[in-house]
Amino acid sequence: VSVGNELLFGETVDTNAAWLGRELTTLGISVVRGFTVGDVAEDIEWAVRKAAQASELVMVTGGLGPTPDDLTKATVAQMFSLPLTCDDQVLETLKVRYSAGGHDEVPVAARGQAEIPQGSTVLENPEGTAPGILLRTQDATVVLLPGVPGELRAIVRGALRPHLEAMRPPHAERVWHHVTHTTGIVESRLTEQVEASMAELPPDVRAPVGVAYLPDVYGVDLRFSAHGASREEALARIAPLLNAIDQVVAPYRFESTSGDLAEAVSTELRARGMQMATAESCTGGLIAKRITDRPGSSDIFAGGVVAYSNRVKVEQLGVHVDDIETFGAVSEVVAHQLAAGVAALLHADVGIGVTGVAGPGGGSEEKPVGTVWIGTCVRGEVETFLGRYSGDRQAIRARAGQAALAAVYRRVLNASKG
Amino acid sequence: VSVGNELLFGETVDTNAAWLGRELTTLGISVVRGFTVGDVAEDIEWAVRKAAQASELVMVTGGLGPTPDDLTKATVAQMFSLPLTCDDQVLETLKVRYSAGGHDEVPVAARGQAEIPQGSTVLENPEGTAPGILLRTQDATVVLLPGVPGELRAIVRGALRPHLEAMRPPHAERVWHHVTHTTGIVESRLTEQVEASMAELPPDVRAPVGVAYLPDVYGVDLRFSAHGASREEALARIAPLLNAIDQVVAPYRFESTSGDLAEAVSTELRARGMQMATAESCTGGLIAKRITDRPGSSDIFAGGVVAYSNRVKVEQLGVHVDDIETFGAVSEVVAHQLAAGVAALLHADVGIGVTGVAGPGGGSEEKPVGTVWIGTCVRGEVETFLGRYSGDRQAIRARAGQAALAAVYRRVLNASKG
Repeated sequence: VSVGNELLFGETVDTNAAWLGRELTTLGISVVRGFTVGDVAEDIEWAVRKAAQASELVMVTGGLGPTPDDLTKATVAQMFSLPLTCDDQVLETLKVRYSAGGHDEVPVAARGQAEIPQGSTVLENPEGTAPGILLRTQDATVVLLPGVPGELRAIVRGALRPHLEAMRPPHAERVWHHVTHTTGIVESRLTEQVEASMAELPPDVRAPVGVAYLPDVYGVDLRFSAHGASREEALARIAPLLNAIDQVVAPYRFESTSGDLAEAVSTELRARGMQMATAESCTGGLIAKRITDRPGSSDIFAGGVVAYSNRVKVEQLGVHVDDIETFGAVSEVVAHQLAAGVAALLHADVGIGVTGVAGPGGGSEEKPVGTVWIGTCVRGEVETFLGRYSGDRQAIRARAGQAALAAVYRRVLNASKG
Repeated sequence: VSVGNELLFGETVDTNAAWLGRELTTLGISVVRGFTVGDVAEDIEWAVRKAAQASELVMVTGGLGPTPDDLTKATVAQMFSLPLTCDDQVLETLKVRYSAGGHDEVPVAARGQAEIPQGSTVLENPEGTAPGILLRTQDATVVLLPGVPGELRAIVRGALRPHLEAMRPPHAERVWHHVTHTTGIVESRLTEQVEASMAELPPDVRAPVGVAYLPDVYGVDLRFSAHGASREEALARIAPLLNAIDQVVAPYRFESTSGDLAEAVSTELRARGMQMATAESCTGGLIAKRITDRPGSSDIFAGGVVAYSNRVKVEQLGVHVDDIETFGAVSEVVAHQLAAGVAALLHADVGIGVTGVAGPGGGSEEKPVGTVWIGTCVRGEVETFLGRYSGDRQAIRARAGQAALAAVYRRVLNASKG
């Protein structure tokens, strides 16, 4: 249960819920429902009651601070008819903390933070003034946590940790995940092919593994989930499915711990001691940005030219004026010359050239918005392809950049190391 | 209602809920509750039912794709006993979209996306294949939206917009907002100065206006909120506050409808018929990307060089080798030469040069991670400044890029039109 008007109004993105989700999932505790409510006592009460009916553990974040709109603790105490009493140890901690901050005594407004529902367990907050609180009620264990991410994390990984450990289900019930990243194939087609490949597996092999398709603008992740007493046991259950789909996904799969194709490209370039350079027209620097987002990219990235005007294409990158006149700036020959030109100019093993119509204006019948020519040059050999991407300007640029990186990834994978 | 196991497991942060919260709040529609459920039909049904009891409008995101774990549409149709029927127009759109992607026909798995609950309204999705769906039920209006953020946003601002407009509360009850964008001042200092300026206002002027501070990595937005029968009436209430803080915010304020400083810079360059060029080392193309994210940027952007290696700085941009040797690549003189060099190379009126240590490695005692020298060249005159930015690699790059754009913005504002 996430408490706070700022979450409902969208002023703050609820990163706590995702962080707790990952933390609990990793412990083998499955998260079944999330609630977001404002700073309203009856809404908080409603959500905690519903959450306690649906599960054995309820984590409530936010509304523990010292201001008048912090209602969580009083509301939950009242729900379970527990009087609030001052906890001497918490008060002592508050005194130490405020005196370290240069205050002679604890401000009146802040004293309420030492009040704890009778019979509950105080969870020390090493990062701030509001401690966490753990309550065992008839329906469920209810944990109250501050909404400041750093404080919440410190409590969950500190004082709360042994309580969570004790609540883990027996090993056999834990769920483990494996993710296969793909790019360059639309979700519906991937699904069709993957499901068809898996349909040939015996039901006792297929059934115990969950498969989820997670698409975004860059591609589709396949997430396999299986129970197991250990990660190895779960992966052994997942392995036959990975085997069955291997041929289908091979042309689209990439290896990356972060899920970012730029990581995969960087890893393969580094393994071969190769450097890359980019000549970007319609993508306007986004491929260079993605590569340099990663630390240590100077090893594998020589640099790039954002060749937005034709003048830059011609003067800096050696694109022929007459080719631009004959075929247009968005053409196979220009993509070819951009990729080869930037590799030569910046002394790089690999060059990328991208030229296209990102829109919303500039499209024609022959070259509608979304038309992008991509060239890749690997050790002097150039290949080109035509992409047609859908969506708005941002999506077209993102998809074109991803396709260019995917093309480089495939070609570099096949290049010799040296 | 946000649907998806990946949200519960914390693999994806639910940015859609926050975006919808802001969008609805801006329209004067108050958001009272949020639910997150997994890809489980009975959980989706439960959440939609509870949400419909609590409010007049229920927005359901996620679970509209073509894969077997996309259950939202079928579940909601069944809840309200509406048979699914194939919508010819949606099927036609699917055909066009898939044939543009080089497919002969719509894959079987994708056809389900043309099935619509009887009597519902189809909301066109210009970015993808799954349209939004609007259903009027006894309890509430229920809107189903895809979970891919770009698609969701396009539908909400496109086909759904008139329906949301019609659901706005009566004028007199409405809250209107005015946002002042700032960059280059930290939240605590801005808050202190703004609150001090407003403290001098009479209480009957100050009290009716809400002030929120919305910080992100680029700066702090000040949002003023007031009731009013019309936008004008609310703005009249807000005006005295804007007046009171005018002097305090003037050095940091910028004018932009999107809130993006790149828009503000583009507008001012265009008004003066000026073109810009970028030479980016540590920011690696992100300034060029931000400028070219905007349509029509070829008017005002000549191009850029991502000068990641020293060789590129020297060979392409005319940075002196001996200056790099004497002062280092991260130095005032190199930032100066980058800015002047790229403006000359690409025949631009304005040049930006950025060189710094984005980390996590590469810092020294003298030049710790976060040290960035920025040069701006406007019509041949170069100015430089030293920035020290906090945060991880991404945050340092984002802050350095923003600071460079802010410096250009201030200088171009003072430049004559011509």
